Amino acid sequence: MSVTVNTTMVPVGRWQPDSRGRLQEAALALFAERGFDQATTADIAARAGLTERTFFRHFADKREVLFGGSDLLRERIVTGVERAPQAAGPLDAVAAGLDAAAAMLGEFRRDLSRQRQAVIAANPELRERELAKLADYAEGVAAALRQRGAGELQATIAAEAGMTVLRVALERWSGGQDDRDLTTVMRSSMAGLRAVATG
Amino acid sequence: MSVTVNTTMVPVGRWQPDSRGRLQEAALALFAERGFDQATTADIAARAGLTERTFFRHFADKREVLFGGSDLLRERIVTGVERAPQAAGPLDAVAAGLDAAAAMLGEFRRDLSRQRQAVIAANPELRERELAKLADYAEGVAAALRQRGAGELQATIAAEAGMTVLRVALERWSGGQDDRDLTTVMRSSMAGLRAVATG
Repeated sequence: MSVTVNTTMVPVGRWQPDSRGRLQEAALALFAERGFDQATTADIAARAGLTERTFFRHFADKREVLFGGSDLLRERIVTGVERAPQAAGPLDAVAAGLDAAAAMLGEFRRDLSRQRQAVIAANPELRERELAKLADYAEGVAAALRQRGAGELQATIAAEAGMTVLRVALERWSGGQDDRDLTTVMRSSMAGLRAVATG
Repeated sequence: MSVTVNTTMVPVGRWQPDSRGRLQEAALALFAERGFDQATTADIAARAGLTERTFFRHFADKREVLFGGSDLLRERIVTGVERAPQAAGPLDAVAAGLDAAAAMLGEFRRDLSRQRQAVIAANPELRERELAKLADYAEGVAAALRQRGAGELQATIAAEAGMTVLRVALERWSGGQDDRDLTTVMRSSMAGLRAVATG
């Protein structure tokens, strides 16, 4: 898993954070203390005990501390959908994509994931960026579902509902409302969707 | 209905557009031609054959041409949820809120609604604003569902899934993929959600 972890969003080794991990931890702490706009890359590097040059070896800018790994996550989700058994219905295929997302995101430290969400929630621009990211995932998933033969409406609805489940599960997991592992929380959120839709 | 129409998002009288309607029509045409950022309020007023002062009697700024009426729509949706029969499950209550939304939004001219969506889709900032608006509606709906006794997860999932249905239905209706009236399109999208969720 270590290769995966090193390319993902908040990949912090638990015992010996590498430079990337130290920078992320420092950045999230500073964003939380001062707000995203007030924390500079120089501040972040200093807090991590590293140089600004090292920061820029790992991240194009401070936004990437929050949104790096998005493309990989999108790819994992879409691949999960594509590879679901051909007999699986649209929402089952989406569930397979969400399992892939949970496997990737569940590697992150829950406390850092919570910090990240709090930073994003506090900043309208970041919040909107996060929503746009999920809308983009939904488009990828819907396209994969259409490829699998789902109708237009079915594909769109299943994809969008799936991203809702992803968001809700991540919030519950990182917020500590549900302290089980992310895969379990994700599946239970999906079961929640099925329950409200049939109930 | 005329009082409703005059406080809503794209309220254009069909035969004799009032000033507000003419300004909206002019604004949407200019946004489409030049892009939202390039069209000025002076241009919009001139195109409508009105003064800029008249523009500002109707709208605080050009964004409001696109997003005015949002608060009223939110209120209608939430009220619809609150007033659903007590025996209705969470998603049935959401469906009642969406009926209220369809009644309000269905008054708009479909072609203007389509123009509005195209303008928003072409501009990342507007797109993100639109998503944030829907997220805000979802919060209001989830709160109303909790008031009705729904559990936290159930309320969140039903609210978010409902906003997905709203968005998908509006796109299909204004985009002409479904040429029935908005209430029918909304209900059929909700039926689509139930269908994918039950497999």
